[in-house]
Amino acid sequence: MALFVQKYGGTSVGSTERIKNVARRVAKLYAQGHELVVVVSAMSGETNRLITLAKEIQTNPDPRELDVMVSTGEQVTVALLAMALKELNIKAKSYTGAQVRILTDNAYTKARILKIDEDRIRSDLKAGNIVVVAGFQGIDDANNITTLGRGGSDTTGVALAAALKADECQIYTDVNGIYTTDPRIVPEARKLKTIIFEEMLEMASLGSKVLQIRSVEFAGKYKVKLRVLSSFEEEGEGTLITFEEDNNMEQAVISGIAFNRDEAKITILGAPDHPGVAYQILGPVADANIDVDMIIQNVSHDGTTDFSFTVNRSEFANTMGILKDKILPHIGARDIMGGDKIAKVSVVGVGMRSHAGIASKMFRVLAEEGINIQMISTSEIKISVVVDEKYMELAVRVLHKAFDLDRAQ
Amino acid sequence: MALFVQKYGGTSVGSTERIKNVARRVAKLYAQGHELVVVVSAMSGETNRLITLAKEIQTNPDPRELDVMVSTGEQVTVALLAMALKELNIKAKSYTGAQVRILTDNAYTKARILKIDEDRIRSDLKAGNIVVVAGFQGIDDANNITTLGRGGSDTTGVALAAALKADECQIYTDVNGIYTTDPRIVPEARKLKTIIFEEMLEMASLGSKVLQIRSVEFAGKYKVKLRVLSSFEEEGEGTLITFEEDNNMEQAVISGIAFNRDEAKITILGAPDHPGVAYQILGPVADANIDVDMIIQNVSHDGTTDFSFTVNRSEFANTMGILKDKILPHIGARDIMGGDKIAKVSVVGVGMRSHAGIASKMFRVLAEEGINIQMISTSEIKISVVVDEKYMELAVRVLHKAFDLDRAQ
Repeated sequence: MALFVQKYGGTSVGSTERIKNVARRVAKLYAQGHELVVVVSAMSGETNRLITLAKEIQTNPDPRELDVMVSTGEQVTVALLAMALKELNIKAKSYTGAQVRILTDNAYTKARILKIDEDRIRSDLKAGNIVVVAGFQGIDDANNITTLGRGGSDTTGVALAAALKADECQIYTDVNGIYTTDPRIVPEARKLKTIIFEEMLEMASLGSKVLQIRSVEFAGKYKVKLRVLSSFEEEGEGTLITFEEDNNMEQAVISGIAFNRDEAKITILGAPDHPGVAYQILGPVADANIDVDMIIQNVSHDGTTDFSFTVNRSEFANTMGILKDKILPHIGARDIMGGDKIAKVSVVGVGMRSHAGIASKMFRVLAEEGINIQMISTSEIKISVVVDEKYMELAVRVLHKAFDLDRAQ
Repeated sequence: MALFVQKYGGTSVGSTERIKNVARRVAKLYAQGHELVVVVSAMSGETNRLITLAKEIQTNPDPRELDVMVSTGEQVTVALLAMALKELNIKAKSYTGAQVRILTDNAYTKARILKIDEDRIRSDLKAGNIVVVAGFQGIDDANNITTLGRGGSDTTGVALAAALKADECQIYTDVNGIYTTDPRIVPEARKLKTIIFEEMLEMASLGSKVLQIRSVEFAGKYKVKLRVLSSFEEEGEGTLITFEEDNNMEQAVISGIAFNRDEAKITILGAPDHPGVAYQILGPVADANIDVDMIIQNVSHDGTTDFSFTVNRSEFANTMGILKDKILPHIGARDIMGGDKIAKVSVVGVGMRSHAGIASKMFRVLAEEGINIQMISTSEIKISVVVDEKYMELAVRVLHKAFDLDRAQ
C-alpha cells in the first residue's frame, strides 16, 4: 500500500465529463488499496474568465481581491471531484487551501508555501477517504486568501507530497510525459522516459510549461519522486524525474530544446560601473516581487556598462515604471530601453558538462537560418539565447534537428 | 455618523457595471462620514450555474460539497465590489463567511448562524475601510464551509447588523419596497411606507420573496431596524419594517396578499388519534432537516384522523420517502397521499385582530370565482388557503381588489 499525491491540471478537469473520468481513474488506484490525495486546478478557462471579470472593474486588479476571486476556480473543482467520487460510492472530502491550512507568505498572486498542516488530511486518509485539495491557493497568517501564481497547483501537489512523505507525486496533464521539445512546434519531438532533475528544472523554467518551476525546485529540495503523466491515456508511464545521473547509461548530450515567449527584455544603458549598481537596479524590482529571469552584464568601457535583464512579459510595464521612477534618477545611467517582442530559446542537457562545442554549434545553426541573437546566457547545463519573437519556432525546429533529438535514445 | 449594514442582492450585482453602480452608491454614503459594512449575494444566475454543474455530476449533489461550490458565487462578488471601491480610491476589504468567522451549525445548504466574530470588522471600520462581506455563507466549528440556504444573504446582513449594533440594516433589492402584493401579478399593487414586523414575517414566509423569513425573524429578535430599498433608484425611502403598531394611525385591516407556489401537500389518512402521533409523524421529518410549513389536523372520527402538512416542493419526494419507509409502518395509518401542484394564498394584516368577517369575505370571493379551497390555516394576523396551482394568480388578483389594496392608504 502506497500513498500517492496526484495532481490534475485545468484541461484534465475541463468539463464535468472529464472530472468523472478523473474520478474513475482515481477510484481504480484506490481499489488497489492505495491512499490518495488529489490536487486539482480550476476548470480550464475559468481562471481567465475570472481575471477578465476583475479587469472590467480595475485595469490592474487589486492583488488581495484578485486572489479572493481566482481561488474560487479550484474551490469549484474540488467540490465537483469529491461529488464524482461519492457518486462512485467512495468516501471523499474536499478542502480549500485555507481549510488544509496551506500557510503561505502574503505576496498576493505569487505567494510561497511556508508550512502545511497535514494532520486533518492524515486522519481523513486513515478513515478511508480520498482527500481532494484545491491547488494554487493558501492562506497567510492573518487568514487572507493567497494564490501561488499560475501553475501553482503543481507546487501544491509537491508540497503536499513532501509534507505527507508520499511515495510518489504524479502530475497529470494534457501531455503524456516530458518531450525533447513541444510536439506542437516540432512533430518529431520524442518522449523522455526519465529526465534528470536539473534538466527538468531548466526545461520548466524555460517555459516548456509541463511543470511549474517552483514545484520542481520543491521536489528536488524534499526529494519527492515526481512523475508526469497524461490524464487522457489509460496506460503509459509518463516521465519520471530523477535526482541523479545514471552512470550506467550513456547520457545524451542534449535532452531537449526549451523556449519561452512570455518574456520581455530591459536594458539600462550607461550605468556607472561600480560596486552596488546591480543591487541598486534589481533591489527595487525584487521588492516589488517581480521575478527576474536572465541577467546579463558585459565588460564595461569608459567607466559605464550596459545592464540587461528579462522579466515576465506581464510585468514589463510595471518594471519599466519602477526603473524610471525609482532607479534611473538615483544611479545616473544614461537611458533605459526595453522590448517585449522577444523569445528565449535554450538547449538543455547534463551531458553538456563533458562536451565542448555545443554553444558554437548552436550559434552556427541559428546563423545559417539568418536568426540574429540578441542576448546570450549560459549555465552548466543550458545555453539560452534571446531572439526576435517571430523566429522562435524556426529556431526550436532547427536546433531540435541539429542535436539529433528526433532520433531514438 | 452612523453605522449602516447594506445588503445587495444578486440582481443588484448582476454585472460588473451594476457592481460599479453599487460602489458609487456606497461611496456617496461613505463620503458623508458613515461607517459601512456591505453584504453581497452572488451575481444573478451564478448560483444556478454552479448547481447545474453539480447536478451534471450527482443528481442529488452531496450537501457538504455543494456548499463548498456555491459559496464561491459570493466570494467572487465581494472581491469585485472591493476592487470597484478601491478604483474610487476608497479603502475596502473583502471577507468570506469563513474569514469573518460567521459560525453556523453544520446543517449544510440550510445552516443557521450561531455567532459572529465581529472584532476584525470593527478594527477595519475604525481604520477607515468599507468592509465587504460574502452573504449566504459561514463555517461550522470544524471549519467546514456551510451555506444558509437561498436568500440567506439577507440573514447575513441582519446578523451582522445585530452583532455590530448597526443603526440600520438596508436591504437593497430589485424592488423599491414592500408591496401589497407582487406587482407582476397585480399591476395595481401599492408600495407600503411601513410594515409591521409580524406582517412582514407573514409576507416573507408566504413567499413574497422580498426578504428571507429567517432574516426578518432575526431582525425582530435583535430589534434591528430593517429597510427594504431599490438598488436601481437613486432616491426613494423604500419600506421600513417597524416593531410596534402605530396607535396614532388607523391601521389598514389587510396589508397585503402573499402567495407561494413552492409548496407541496402531504396527507396521512386514518392515523390513529392518540397522543404522540403528530410527533411520530413530524419527528423524522424534522430530523431530516425538512422545514414544515402548514400543519392541519381536523377533529377525528372512528378513532382515526387525517393529518396534513406542507413542505417545500423540492423536499416533496424526499418527505414522501421518509413517510413511507420510516413512519407509515409504525403508526398504523391507512394510507398516505400528496401532491405538488398546489399554491398557497394568504391575506395578511395586524388589523385583522380587531375585525371580524375577514375569513368569510375571503372564502366568498374565492367561491365566486369557482376556486376550490383544499386546505385552510389561520393565525392571528393571516388566513392562508391552499388552492390548485393554476388558480393562484386569479386568487391573488381578486383578493387584492376585494380588500381595497389598490386604493391609497
